[in-house]
Amino acid sequence: MVKDIFTFFSRIMKGDRVALGQAMTLVESERYSDRVEAIQLLELCHQHLPARDKSIRMAISGAPGVGKSTLIEALGLKAIAQGHKVGVITIDPTSSVSHGSILGDKLRMPGLSVSPDAFVRSSAAGSVLGGIGRRSFELMTLLEAVGYDIILLETVGVGQSEHIAWQLTDGFVLVLQPGGGDELQGIKRGITELADIVIINKADGSLRDSAAISKSHYQNAIHYLAPLRNNWDPKILMCSALKNEGIDEFWDVLRLYMDTRWYANQKEIERNRQNHFWISWSIGITANQLLVNHPVVQQKLRERLSGNENRSIPIFKAEYEIEEVMKELIVPSTTNNI
Amino acid sequence: MVKDIFTFFSRIMKGDRVALGQAMTLVESERYSDRVEAIQLLELCHQHLPARDKSIRMAISGAPGVGKSTLIEALGLKAIAQGHKVGVITIDPTSSVSHGSILGDKLRMPGLSVSPDAFVRSSAAGSVLGGIGRRSFELMTLLEAVGYDIILLETVGVGQSEHIAWQLTDGFVLVLQPGGGDELQGIKRGITELADIVIINKADGSLRDSAAISKSHYQNAIHYLAPLRNNWDPKILMCSALKNEGIDEFWDVLRLYMDTRWYANQKEIERNRQNHFWISWSIGITANQLLVNHPVVQQKLRERLSGNENRSIPIFKAEYEIEEVMKELIVPSTTNNI
Repeated sequence: MVKDIFTFFSRIMKGDRVALGQAMTLVESERYSDRVEAIQLLELCHQHLPARDKSIRMAISGAPGVGKSTLIEALGLKAIAQGHKVGVITIDPTSSVSHGSILGDKLRMPGLSVSPDAFVRSSAAGSVLGGIGRRSFELMTLLEAVGYDIILLETVGVGQSEHIAWQLTDGFVLVLQPGGGDELQGIKRGITELADIVIINKADGSLRDSAAISKSHYQNAIHYLAPLRNNWDPKILMCSALKNEGIDEFWDVLRLYMDTRWYANQKEIERNRQNHFWISWSIGITANQLLVNHPVVQQKLRERLSGNENRSIPIFKAEYEIEEVMKELIVPSTTNNI
Repeated sequence: MVKDIFTFFSRIMKGDRVALGQAMTLVESERYSDRVEAIQLLELCHQHLPARDKSIRMAISGAPGVGKSTLIEALGLKAIAQGHKVGVITIDPTSSVSHGSILGDKLRMPGLSVSPDAFVRSSAAGSVLGGIGRRSFELMTLLEAVGYDIILLETVGVGQSEHIAWQLTDGFVLVLQPGGGDELQGIKRGITELADIVIINKADGSLRDSAAISKSHYQNAIHYLAPLRNNWDPKILMCSALKNEGIDEFWDVLRLYMDTRWYANQKEIERNRQNHFWISWSIGITANQLLVNHPVVQQKLRERLSGNENRSIPIFKAEYEIEEVMKELIVPSTTNNI
């Protein structure tokens, strides 16, 4: 088994794309035997992460329909033309097969999906927690170990997923479409301030003026908020990913971001912080899955909270009973001081 | 036991303040026998929650030192003068006794702490999770059942606590102090957009001009963000809580907020939403405490993550081992399909 993993790892490192895809499927699998092998593989990759400063993991966030895929395609192709290798982790909302829709990728990112210098992975629909994949962090490790140095993690903008994505990446790109008049459409409150780079997409044709207004609105809004990072002020750009306009500027800003972000030994410090956050987050999800999503607990939740959603539901009694059910699921031990 | 709870409940409902304090201590207790009685009491209170529309639970958030206590004191006394009863749940950072510092309350809110129409409770230091008390939701239920109709929940502004507080209350007040020049001091990104009412406090004397500038900056910033609620635009006010200036306006805005918020049957719908969020949040905390905070798991975490915080820590192996430890803590069952 161990010998197989080393062989598997060698194949991946040598550039075997089929093996890389299989490795990702392995990492996303919930089967116990797969987990054991996946961890061995991930540790090998983790040890082989290159120390180069010219690699970065960027979250690409935005509401559905703003053009994230088109933007990723345009930026990715630009990065490849500059000599980089681009890894993309996306969530394909139309996907129903276990590892995303290959056809969907070809339609949404036709250039990247056939480039030997890019690797596009749609996260398995079942492994997505809200807007971020359960194993996205692990997938980024795989990609970076193999040599992909521009890694783009697409998030869908659901719930708290952007905050998680922000914690697990080196930088955050918010993609928006032009708003109408004073009110900026599609802005999800709570994530504007996470952005290191804001892209007003679809800034072409009849929407160009609207995009310029949106850009200046955002510049105002962001100007009055305290900066998130010590040495970087958020940049706001207008692009038309479809027409490949503004993409050179986007690339220049991204390179500037990398240079600024990775001064001294910041990358090591930053990746350590992300590692620690990831462990806490990941084991927290497992704790919830083991307990809250336990069939016994879910059954109790359904019994207690189903039907009429009115104030006569004894919420405190329900919560207490669910706590008791969860406690009963924990093995008592001599060191158990709960 | 049951008969005692009914008697206890009657005393509380009749206005026995000592009994109310004891009830809060009971609710915040983690002892098993106390939990059973606390749940019975909370259910009685829950059934007796008045249906009146003129009651509201407001989160009062802001960085330490902006003057939240002074503002709560000023607003509270105004509300009492208008015929209301005010309940305050605070976190006393200097507190070390099990239910907060009575002396601290008397110093920080001298008027409210002696008013028969107010009840001030400092949450026990040990029960605070970041910036919000573990049992704050339960304490608000107690206060409202007894007849306190303006309930102010102070949060400290740590981590994600404001987002939790936002979910568990009817409205959100953000308290700031005037900033210097262009940059607004003390603004914590990520919560600006949660605010229904923004108070620029300490807007007196030499800080008055600065406060006016801050107010206009915030008006600009918030103007460009999508509104959080359907029928309410955030209001920004300047106050000097110490000099009791701007407090009448604050009260008027709060009353307007109540009228606007509770149109039709919105209160019932809103409180149901809060109830459901609360149950998910509360059982999630319990799940984490039962598993992640289990001594066995904590020991494993310390072993694996201690010492040198550098990239040679096998994070994936560590996470996997901790998962395995947690799984071993779960009783296997025939219905267990994990």
